[in-house]
Amino acid sequence: MDNWLPTLIVATPEQGFDLAFKLSRMAVKKAQPSEDVREKVRKDYEDDAESLIAISQVVAINFQTIAAANGYWR
Amino acid sequence: MDNWLPTLIVATPEQGFDLAFKLSRMAVKKAQPSEDVREKVRKDYEDDAESLIAISQVVAINFQTIAAANGYWR
Amino acid sequence: MDNWLPTLIVATPEQGFDLAFKLSRMAVKKAQPSEDVREKVRKDYEDDAESLIAISQVVAINFQTIAAANGYWR
Amino acid sequence: MDNWLPTLIVATPEQGFDLAFKLSRMAVKKAQPSEDVREKVRKDYEDDAESLIAISQVVAINFQTIAAANGYWR
Amino acid sequence: MDNWLPTLIVATPEQGFDLAFKLSRMAVKKAQPSEDVREKVRKDYEDDAESLIAISQVVAINFQTIAAANGYWR
Amino acid sequence: MDNWLPTLIVATPEQGFDLAFKLSRMAVKKAQPSEDVREKVRKDYEDDAESLIAISQVVAINFQTIAAANGYWR
Repeated sequence: MDNWLPTLIVATPEQGFDLAFKLSRMAVKKAQPSEDVREKVRKDYEDDAESLIAISQVVAINFQTIAAANGYWR
Repeated sequence: MDNWLPTLIVATPEQGFDLAFKLSRMAVKKAQPSEDVREKVRKDYEDDAESLIAISQVVAINFQTIAAANGYWR
Repeated sequence: MDNWLPTLIVATPEQGFDLAFKLSRMAVKKAQPSEDVREKVRKDYEDDAESLIAISQVVAINFQTIAAANGYWR
Repeated sequence: MDNWLPTLIVATPEQGFDLAFKLSRMAVKKAQPSEDVREKVRKDYEDDAESLIAISQVVAINFQTIAAANGYWR
Repeated sequence: MDNWLPTLIVATPEQGFDLAFKLSRMAVKKAQPSEDVREKVRKDYEDDAESLIAISQVVAINFQTIAAANGYWR
Repeated sequence: MDNWLPTLIVATPEQGFDLAFKLSRMAVKKAQPSEDVREKVRKDYEDDAESLIAISQVVAINFQTIAAANGYWR
């Protein structure tokens, strides 16, 4: 997990959205380091409406941070 | 999914709200790339009060970002 | 749904709160366009504590946006 | 419900917290106008840990707005 | 409950975190004034993962407010 | 728990993310001081999709605070 987040500054909104997604995943990874368990958990959420909406919410919160960091790419 | 988010800047609040909605959907799409599975999931949430309110919450968070990016269209 | 959000600027905090409520509803409307289904869903949430609190949360998030847009009506 | 929110500006943090609480309640009131139904719903949440925590979350979001409006009473 | 929140300004981040915790509790206290009921509710959440995470979320939101009020103790 | 949060200022985004994680844990620790109970609770959430996503959300909120405190490491 070393040096996975050198900066919040990215060139485009799309890259910012990808980074927001990455932050969301990394928090899960830190809470549950086992790849095997996470793979099993993925099977639970990947066809569950409530979980997918919850993931979208976490990404939205992280995207607020990334967008602000980048001056909204104005 | 290429180049789906060239900018956060849009002309009107209404377009901003539509973009907030799009961001919310794209996060789900990234978490669950299969169109078929997402279609099945849609059947679960589309008549579920809790899910619809949760979607509205994600859109609200993304709209905060878009509105700030656009100086609130003042 | 055309031109339902011409501006975020309103004269008073109370009108701002009403607009926050409207934004919350519009996201549900976009996710579930059928008036009939929404009416049925309303029956589920209107006497459910958890749903009513969740609605209040969405309104609170949207009110943050509207209040910031209006310089908090200071 | 007329003129229930003339201003977001209050003299002290404590009054601001009370106003945040009021905003949270008013959204519920707008979503469920019947006093009788709300009274019944209150019985569901008032001894439910999850609901009480959720209420605290809505108040926290509204308090962010009120505190920002008042320059954090600095 | 009188004069429990004279200011949002505290000397250190740690005191700020304690205050964020206090705000979270006070909202519960206002929603459920009975000490006895709150004590009973505490038994429900104190060994429940979902509730403890939800509490942590409310504290995080309140800590955003307190940290901003204090200029992040920079 | 003494002096666990001397500052919000850290050198890199990665350290900021770690601190956001620490804040999220500390709130749980304050709500449930018993190490034994927390260990038992960990067993409940560590393979539960909904809980892991909820943890990621709390970290995202705390990361907003830390990132703002550090001027987004620009």
